[in-house]
Amino acid sequence: MAAFDLAEHPHRRYNPLSGEWVLVSPHRAKRPWQGQQEKITKAERPEYDPTCYLCPSNERIGGERNPAYTSTYIFQNDFAALTENTPEGGFHKGGLLKAESERGICKVICFSPRHDQTLADMDVSDIRKVVDLWQQEYEELGKLDYINHVQIFENKGEAMGCSNPHPHGQIWAQSTVPAAPAQETKQQQAYFQEHGRSLLQDYVELELEEKERLLYQNEHFVVLVPFWAVWPFETMILPKKHLQHIGQLGDDEKTAFADAIRQLTATYDRLFDISFPYSAGIHQSPTDGQQHEGWHWHMHFYPPLLRSATVKKFMVGYEMLGDPQRDITPETSAERLRAVM
Amino acid sequence: MAAFDLAEHPHRRYNPLSGEWVLVSPHRAKRPWQGQQEKITKAERPEYDPTCYLCPSNERIGGERNPAYTSTYIFQNDFAALTENTPEGGFHKGGLLKAESERGICKVICFSPRHDQTLADMDVSDIRKVVDLWQQEYEELGKLDYINHVQIFENKGEAMGCSNPHPHGQIWAQSTVPAAPAQETKQQQAYFQEHGRSLLQDYVELELEEKERLLYQNEHFVVLVPFWAVWPFETMILPKKHLQHIGQLGDDEKTAFADAIRQLTATYDRLFDISFPYSAGIHQSPTDGQQHEGWHWHMHFYPPLLRSATVKKFMVGYEMLGDPQRDITPETSAERLRAVM
Ligand SMILES: O=P(O)(O)O[C@H]1O[C@H](CO)[C@@H](O)[C@H](O)[C@H]1O
Ligand SMILES: O=P(O)(O)O[C@H]1O[C@H](CO)[C@@H](O)[C@H](O)[C@H]1O
Repeated sequence: MAAFDLAEHPHRRYNPLSGEWVLVSPHRAKRPWQGQQEKITKAERPEYDPTCYLCPSNERIGGERNPAYTSTYIFQNDFAALTENTPEGGFHKGGLLKAESERGICKVICFSPRHDQTLADMDVSDIRKVVDLWQQEYEELGKLDYINHVQIFENKGEAMGCSNPHPHGQIWAQSTVPAAPAQETKQQQAYFQEHGRSLLQDYVELELEEKERLLYQNEHFVVLVPFWAVWPFETMILPKKHLQHIGQLGDDEKTAFADAIRQLTATYDRLFDISFPYSAGIHQSPTDGQQHEGWHWHMHFYPPLLRSATVKKFMVGYEMLGDPQRDITPETSAERLRAVM
Repeated sequence: MAAFDLAEHPHRRYNPLSGEWVLVSPHRAKRPWQGQQEKITKAERPEYDPTCYLCPSNERIGGERNPAYTSTYIFQNDFAALTENTPEGGFHKGGLLKAESERGICKVICFSPRHDQTLADMDVSDIRKVVDLWQQEYEELGKLDYINHVQIFENKGEAMGCSNPHPHGQIWAQSTVPAAPAQETKQQQAYFQEHGRSLLQDYVELELEEKERLLYQNEHFVVLVPFWAVWPFETMILPKKHLQHIGQLGDDEKTAFADAIRQLTATYDRLFDISFPYSAGIHQSPTDGQQHEGWHWHMHFYPPLLRSATVKKFMVGYEMLGDPQRDITPETSAERLRAVM
């Protein structure tokens, strides 16, 4: 019998950050595809779209008018999933029906006044303004008494449920720490208690040695395909320094972060020669007043495409009922991304 | 301040089966949609398609030829995510890179020789043949020494990554119990130890009283929208009797199960007047030789559509990085489904 080989044989990989496993089936990428094809939307958008509710000076659906903004612009989501004034309360029945009211704030950030751009097309200096705003919002929202978690994210592209192509992201800040960051809190804290070091700092050092999954680095950041990636071209941006949250970033670090974002998103666009869809977001320490020494903030990129601009990976059936599953190895993905870096 | 109201205010609901929470935003269903639209594929398929690799007598991609089957037909997946002869082994580095080889078997079940049908169109007696096959496979695969979990599921429709419209489902059987059923094992066992009763039996009794989320019942089964549903029109089929797995089903129960499937899938098709996409699957006790007294088997249906035949719910950004989130209440969904039952 052949020896077990990560590049050949089905296996499970452990994600030390979430405590979860992913099933990897390296040999399965060759299966035939007669299913759904994504539309290719080549970005021939105008710089300004009079019907876009995110463009400068336009009226939003809620009735308000955007200012004639010239860099970034932030406002409260007109269709917020969370509200500041949710009445307190809950619903409990027979120990099995259990609901709790939830307070929060949802905001929308326009990255640029230009309707036709994305982070991948913007200059580092313009992305830097987005980073500045993220930092400011994390700090200000986090200071609010009832806000214990601030989730900064972007859904890009129709395939990721983005309802408007104008370059924008969102912030959902709320009372409860959601499951994913709560899990990362637990895992990182346990590692820190055991080793007196940051889990992700140790991980970054390992990957800088291994190089196989490394995509890019600058003075302060590393971009890589994590060993435990679930999505075909999933990546992470990680600060080399052990910092709990983006509130701690200095001037140089913010510019280096903007540079890492620019490099990664532009590489993504080159992979299949389209504006690459993804959901991305920053995981960092909860704003619940605890210490969180174990936390090492980072940014996740979850892109849905698998084989081409039109065939995506579906997290369905087995993935919904069992475990996440992937068809090409993270090492192969890293190689393909590096080839267009 | 208004009193907290489940039908009005943002809240979180607890899923006692998984131990997870879902964020519910009842007021958000009104937000505008300029995003991706699904194609409507009206099923004008022929009874037999000479190019379909699942139709009777046709050649499969692997080169084998299907028999001229007349009811159900099962074979090993030509592009299996799991293989029987995976060499044992693992990969470990620095405590942070961790992989384990995984053995398993992937099968495909054709539900019908007819290319143009789905479970929703089939007679109860024909669906019953599918149930018989599921039962037989669960028992036979489960007997294998190295198989500790058998996942039976169906991906239906292009929106659910189904790569061929011929009515079919899959079985992935493997050594490890995946995360979702492992979590249900833990939760149900804890409940059983505390109360000496099945969690889902107590839940079914509660919902039979409440009626608000109930869709259908026959002598042996209940169909409902669970209180903690994540997907807009998510449902469950639950046996009234506390049984660990489908191996325990008698003749009447198997027919009643087929009837419940027929009722639910036909209702789904009427909701938006299309062949309704979903992933569905059976959760039941692992085949790892343990007792599993707490286990109460059931079937989950996870359909992606939200507002219409063309607008689905995207589990993206916040959902990937935080918690699952839904825009209409399970009670509203149940009402809408009952209206076309
Ligand atoms: O095996 P199929 O039907 O080609 O593939 C489909 O179901 C699998 C199991 O849920 C998923 O992993 C695939 O992403 C999906 O496209
Ligand atoms: O608020 P948007 O951009 O309209 O909505 C999008 O992002 C949200 C947060 O990830 C998701 O809940 C929605 O399903 C998605 O369509």
